[in-house]
Amino acid sequence: MIKKVDHIGVAVKSLDKAIALYRDVLGFELLEIEEVDSQKVRVAKFDINGVHIEFLEPTSEESPIYKYIDKKGEGLHHIAYFTDDIDGELKKLKEGGIQLINNEPVKGSSNTMIAFVHPKSSIVLTELVSKGE
Amino acid sequence: MIKKVDHIGVAVKSLDKAIALYRDVLGFELLEIEEVDSQKVRVAKFDINGVHIEFLEPTSEESPIYKYIDKKGEGLHHIAYFTDDIDGELKKLKEGGIQLINNEPVKGSSNTMIAFVHPKSSIVLTELVSKGE
Repeated sequence: MIKKVDHIGVAVKSLDKAIALYRDVLGFELLEIEEVDSQKVRVAKFDINGVHIEFLEPTSEESPIYKYIDKKGEGLHHIAYFTDDIDGELKKLKEGGIQLINNEPVKGSSNTMIAFVHPKSSIVLTELVSKGE
Repeated sequence: MIKKVDHIGVAVKSLDKAIALYRDVLGFELLEIEEVDSQKVRVAKFDINGVHIEFLEPTSEESPIYKYIDKKGEGLHHIAYFTDDIDGELKKLKEGGIQLINNEPVKGSSNTMIAFVHPKSSIVLTELVSKGE
């Protein structure tokens, strides 16, 4: 079952502006800045009471985040929910006729398994996250 | 200080599709459906571990949500953070040169006080929420 909001992803042109506001003015805890090669992004992760706000800065014009910003501008990109049973959730979604981007879980960062639901079905680009084996 | 993510607002053309997926397939708890006349929206509020996901359906072409969907399409609209000191947060934001939509808190629904930060400054349309007096 889905346990909580894991993180909210925000597409930004530059992490500097996000850090200046969210850490320096609002006092959010900056957990880390990580480079994710597979997505060609740098990610600044903030924590608010167990929910992470992740700002995603493209490092290349090939990044899906670069293309997103080019088309829609900076802003909210996706919501991720934490589940203790990602296979069970994907099964429920398939049985409910929901269109998935990942029919099976794939490896995420930090020893997680993840799967994306297609925004055509979920309105919002939605990610499921569970702990890796 | 900011305590937690209070809710995430999602602009939708119809609550029915949101309810069919989030309640009926994913099993999120539907707390209530509320009509907010001032914003000309119907709101379906779901709870996931204390964070609300609020789907906002315009009830008129005059609704800011109607205009948002017309311009940007359905999807993530804003993040709201709960604070125990909304006046203090607004003061910090003003001192940090952050552009606000509401310079002073205004009445929200369910006995709350709210204020919006301008997305030009916060990247994402951002709402602060505190308990009313």
